[in-house]
Amino acid sequence: MERICCTIQYDGTNYSGYQIQTNGRTVQEQIEKALTKMHKGTPIRIIASGRTDAGVHAMGQVVHFDSSIIIEEHQWKKALQTLLPADIYISHVEKVASDFHAQHQTTGKEYRYYVFNGKEPDIFKRHIRYHVPYNLDMKAIKKACTYIEGTHDFTSFCSMKTHLKGDKVRTITYASCEKIENEIIFTFRGDGFLYNMVRILVGTLLDIGQGNNPPEIIEEMIDAKDRRRAGKTAPPQGLFLWKVDYN
Amino acid sequence: MERICCTIQYDGTNYSGYQIQTNGRTVQEQIEKALTKMHKGTPIRIIASGRTDAGVHAMGQVVHFDSSIIIEEHQWKKALQTLLPADIYISHVEKVASDFHAQHQTTGKEYRYYVFNGKEPDIFKRHIRYHVPYNLDMKAIKKACTYIEGTHDFTSFCSMKTHLKGDKVRTITYASCEKIENEIIFTFRGDGFLYNMVRILVGTLLDIGQGNNPPEIIEEMIDAKDRRRAGKTAPPQGLFLWKVDYN
Repeated sequence: MERICCTIQYDGTNYSGYQIQTNGRTVQEQIEKALTKMHKGTPIRIIASGRTDAGVHAMGQVVHFDSSIIIEEHQWKKALQTLLPADIYISHVEKVASDFHAQHQTTGKEYRYYVFNGKEPDIFKRHIRYHVPYNLDMKAIKKACTYIEGTHDFTSFCSMKTHLKGDKVRTITYASCEKIENEIIFTFRGDGFLYNMVRILVGTLLDIGQGNNPPEIIEEMIDAKDRRRAGKTAPPQGLFLWKVDYN
Repeated sequence: MERICCTIQYDGTNYSGYQIQTNGRTVQEQIEKALTKMHKGTPIRIIASGRTDAGVHAMGQVVHFDSSIIIEEHQWKKALQTLLPADIYISHVEKVASDFHAQHQTTGKEYRYYVFNGKEPDIFKRHIRYHVPYNLDMKAIKKACTYIEGTHDFTSFCSMKTHLKGDKVRTITYASCEKIENEIIFTFRGDGFLYNMVRILVGTLLDIGQGNNPPEIIEEMIDAKDRRRAGKTAPPQGLFLWKVDYN
């Protein structure tokens, strides 16, 4: 048996999310189906770094699985891709140590959130950008980002639908926002993210960018430890799981 | 009655083409359905500058129709948009003379064809770019474009499935190809285009770009007046009806 680690991209538009569920098409199901076919019907289970929600995309999701098939890494990439739909792409395949674990060994993740900030919508980007037609105060948003960085209890920025039992303290090592032409790109790096955390952060930052709240309100929101104090959850289509880190 | 002219954008991915047909969802059907709703059930027929095929997009398709509703142009834009799906966008509405005709009065059209020329595919562009992973000789393609410009019988660049009865002489006033980072953009302007003409031109130019044929072969192909002499038809997803001209 060999343990195989794959870096994958997916367009989440036509998926009910990453993780297998009773109803709806999922990314995990498509990959496991392809692997099971490669293994002549023997069911293969994959483990991902974490799940993503319906409509959320990935540029660098990481999964691992064990296989009895002994082929080269580039052959894995090709063989698996042939069996996958056009909205999932295997960007990298690597043979890893038998104790590598795509979920338990992550040391950090990067998420990006893309806003299309044109006055008129761009219908060709509607599945991969959140359209915000109003002007945004980039200086205020950038300042607000500095209050996000650091180790905080992010209870206010976690969906109340979470099943998490542990604490909600996370370390955000980098939070930024850049405007390039009509696009606004939010980048967040940290040791872990709570359920809907990036989307709630973006919803809150967009409120600040509209002048509804001052940048400093982020501090108050963090202190409040109350989801109702933060902004609304930005829609899924702007969100990309960009990169997963391992030691 | 007032004659209304609309400039529309559509993402052709989920359409069987522009024109109403017995099977499949079409752009014309969606717009007529919206207009019929606005007119409380009175069927409204729209006339477009021309049709586009399944999977082909539009940035500047033009349609006209007559209406008994008397509202301002910006109100038309808003009211109609509310009733349309997210993959059709009304970019401009104008009241026009009662003898304006979106099809008969066109004086020219511009089409663009977009190629994504990265080594690895970009799954997020799969519906709006044709992925060509190999290197292309841009100088050869640019030279070949010069042979396309002018007034020629384009029989070799017209699908044999055409129902056209008239001649196949068309004047191409501009044919160009530019590479910007990983994107290759073909632009064609002319007084009219035959069935699949742009897609056959692009397929032929990509062959030249790969070194399979010299640029001068365009002249021979035009002279041959035989569809079998030109290259293959490039796929629909890279093609955009960009602009329609009227005097």
